[in-house]
Amino acid sequence: MSSELRARDPEFEERVRASFAQQGLMSTFAARLDPGDPEVVEIVVPFADGLTQQDGFLHAGVVIAAIDSACGYAALSLMEPDCRVLTVELKVNLLSVASGERLLARGQVMRPGRTLTVCRGDAYVLTGEEHHHVATIPTTMFGVATA
Amino acid sequence: MSSELRARDPEFEERVRASFAQQGLMSTFAARLDPGDPEVVEIVVPFADGLTQQDGFLHAGVVIAAIDSACGYAALSLMEPDCRVLTVELKVNLLSVASGERLLARGQVMRPGRTLTVCRGDAYVLTGEEHHHVATIPTTMFGVATA
Amino acid sequence: MSSELRARDPEFEERVRASFAQQGLMSTFAARLDPGDPEVVEIVVPFADGLTQQDGFLHAGVVIAAIDSACGYAALSLMEPDCRVLTVELKVNLLSVASGERLLARGQVMRPGRTLTVCRGDAYVLTGEEHHHVATIPTTMFGVATA
Amino acid sequence: MSSELRARDPEFEERVRASFAQQGLMSTFAARLDPGDPEVVEIVVPFADGLTQQDGFLHAGVVIAAIDSACGYAALSLMEPDCRVLTVELKVNLLSVASGERLLARGQVMRPGRTLTVCRGDAYVLTGEEHHHVATIPTTMFGVATA
Repeated sequence: MSSELRARDPEFEERVRASFAQQGLMSTFAARLDPGDPEVVEIVVPFADGLTQQDGFLHAGVVIAAIDSACGYAALSLMEPDCRVLTVELKVNLLSVASGERLLARGQVMRPGRTLTVCRGDAYVLTGEEHHHVATIPTTMFGVATA
Repeated sequence: MSSELRARDPEFEERVRASFAQQGLMSTFAARLDPGDPEVVEIVVPFADGLTQQDGFLHAGVVIAAIDSACGYAALSLMEPDCRVLTVELKVNLLSVASGERLLARGQVMRPGRTLTVCRGDAYVLTGEEHHHVATIPTTMFGVATA
Repeated sequence: MSSELRARDPEFEERVRASFAQQGLMSTFAARLDPGDPEVVEIVVPFADGLTQQDGFLHAGVVIAAIDSACGYAALSLMEPDCRVLTVELKVNLLSVASGERLLARGQVMRPGRTLTVCRGDAYVLTGEEHHHVATIPTTMFGVATA
Repeated sequence: MSSELRARDPEFEERVRASFAQQGLMSTFAARLDPGDPEVVEIVVPFADGLTQQDGFLHAGVVIAAIDSACGYAALSLMEPDCRVLTVELKVNLLSVASGERLLARGQVMRPGRTLTVCRGDAYVLTGEEHHHVATIPTTMFGVATA
């Protein structure tokens, strides 16, 4: 990890976990957070009947929501402790329908910045030991000082 | 409505309603469907604690999921009865945080095609009689003959 | 035009024209600028052999370059006189191949902001009195104070 | 290189070079083509006064045009000999202003498909031995049989 990408806040994991716990949607999804390295955040969502589209696959909205949260926290992990983060925009290319046991959404900082942070998001479907790339989702995050 | 945009299937509303009823995620969101004119489909999602992000606003994933479904059905409404529709890609610009009583997601066909249909999606937050534009989301849909 | 969208700088047209004159690429394209209303900027590019893709249509890069400049100036027209503008991101949906006499690229502010301005860009091909919508290109612009 | 990604047409390089030679815009840019491995295509554009934006940097339209062509040929290299390729959509995140000696635009197939091919495009600015990542541009290409 380059020095440019090192986390600035030694307590970022607690900060990210506390924020994640407040996301009602992630709770509705029974999603779990893995903050991992500072500039990478992973979220896992188990497949469930309440998360499907019309053919029984995972709804793209679930994939995108998990990536949005993962990228937001990846960006937040490099910001000052008093910052919060808002999504400016994101772009979704769906590579495959999402069918499996659970979704892995990975957000990773591609270019950190004082105001804007560009992340790459990638979503995988996991079944046993196998994984399958289902979406690539670059996102732009906006950091706002709260103090 | 131009002749180019007229629905080809007189029973599209039933078809769209039946498909919508199978979307587990829309049921989880307590979402309601309004197929409206053939090339326009609207979905309304009431705000709920289980749909929030960390600051108590509606999670962007809910906005995007509703637009994805609305645009998919707008595209489907112009296809042959034996077609189903898959999302190829979509792009989200978030214009404002989503705070209010309910979300209105509107999908509208911008350019119909034999294989690919381009839609514009727009999301509004409604509070009483007021509405506020919170996201613009162009989408590309792929029509697949199922027979 | 709403008060929210009014131009802040009475001399914006001169400012935009001076900046446009410095764009080497627009000169290479023989492009003309029409600043129009404050929050709308139009650029016209005549078709030429030096601007084609492999089938003789206008290269998508020409369409996108003209929209990028038009949206940048639309955003700039609402900013303080000492600001300059950088493109953060843009998304292109190509609706049709571009064949005709000249391209009309229109940039329009959708949501002005202190730091980020979201524009909608639309490109049309003009032949005689007819016009044809060839691309829709939302863009996000970043305003930077130069002083 | 996986077997899934191998080139189907042994003469793809000639085919790509012939098509590239017909792109008037690439000639205007004095661009050079490097077809490279089957699923990767690179295009180099030397900086020139006729390719700038208002501050003297390379215009984003040049970056995007080169990526669009590179991704189109990367997709084409995996298609049947009688196919041609059209851009469906692309998304640009500009990571930095483009200043240097020459632009390297790399298009690479991310997910090949019978109808739609998703590519990742990345643009770098080269100065001497150094390179700098200036844009990431996923694209979707549509393959059309011409016969």
